[in-house]
Amino acid sequence: MSKQEITLTPVATGGCCAPISDAALGEAGAVEGAAVFKALADPIRLRLFSMITSAGDEICVCDLTPQFEVSGPTISHHLKVLRAAGLVDCERRGTWVYYWPVPEKLRWVAGLLAVPESAPSR
Amino acid sequence: MSKQEITLTPVATGGCCAPISDAALGEAGAVEGAAVFKALADPIRLRLFSMITSAGDEICVCDLTPQFEVSGPTISHHLKVLRAAGLVDCERRGTWVYYWPVPEKLRWVAGLLAVPESAPSR
Repeated sequence: MSKQEITLTPVATGGCCAPISDAALGEAGAVEGAAVFKALADPIRLRLFSMITSAGDEICVCDLTPQFEVSGPTISHHLKVLRAAGLVDCERRGTWVYYWPVPEKLRWVAGLLAVPESAPSR
Repeated sequence: MSKQEITLTPVATGGCCAPISDAALGEAGAVEGAAVFKALADPIRLRLFSMITSAGDEICVCDLTPQFEVSGPTISHHLKVLRAAGLVDCERRGTWVYYWPVPEKLRWVAGLLAVPESAPSR
């Protein structure tokens, strides 16, 4: 048999299970997603975020601040972090700033937590 | 008019919008949720988590580790954090440890990111 006639058949290597799914998050997506989760990884920010999403439409910062025992500037800082992560947006009208959630971003983030229908429950 | 006859009618105070919804997350839930988001707030952990949820059933640690340029012990540490947050569970079988997602926890966390149907899009 000449060298030219040798054929190599690919074999499964290095694992005992199914290969990593193409559906798994890539490196760039993971960096973006981790940044969003970091914004939510603080109890005050998560409560602020929850108040904003459950307000129905939008909510005035004047209704958010009194719910916490921290200062107004601290609340402003946390709101800025949520906004920088793309989770909420806001608009100043006169004295007050109004906040609302960004549904597209929330859907994307929630999608990262989705378990495929095919996954068996234990 | 005597003091006894004075009646005080409650008035709306301190706000210009709808009151904070009862649906907003309480303090205890916020602490629990923030801890879960903290576990996901790292690109390597988020990729590991994504690989585990998208594996369909379960996945061997031997299929996870080669996907990263960090050491096996580092991967083990990150998997331990995901497990401590209740996002994944695992079982050792012979040489390898197998991981799978915990759907109940994921549904709870995803619920924190849900925007009510009534929320208008902008």
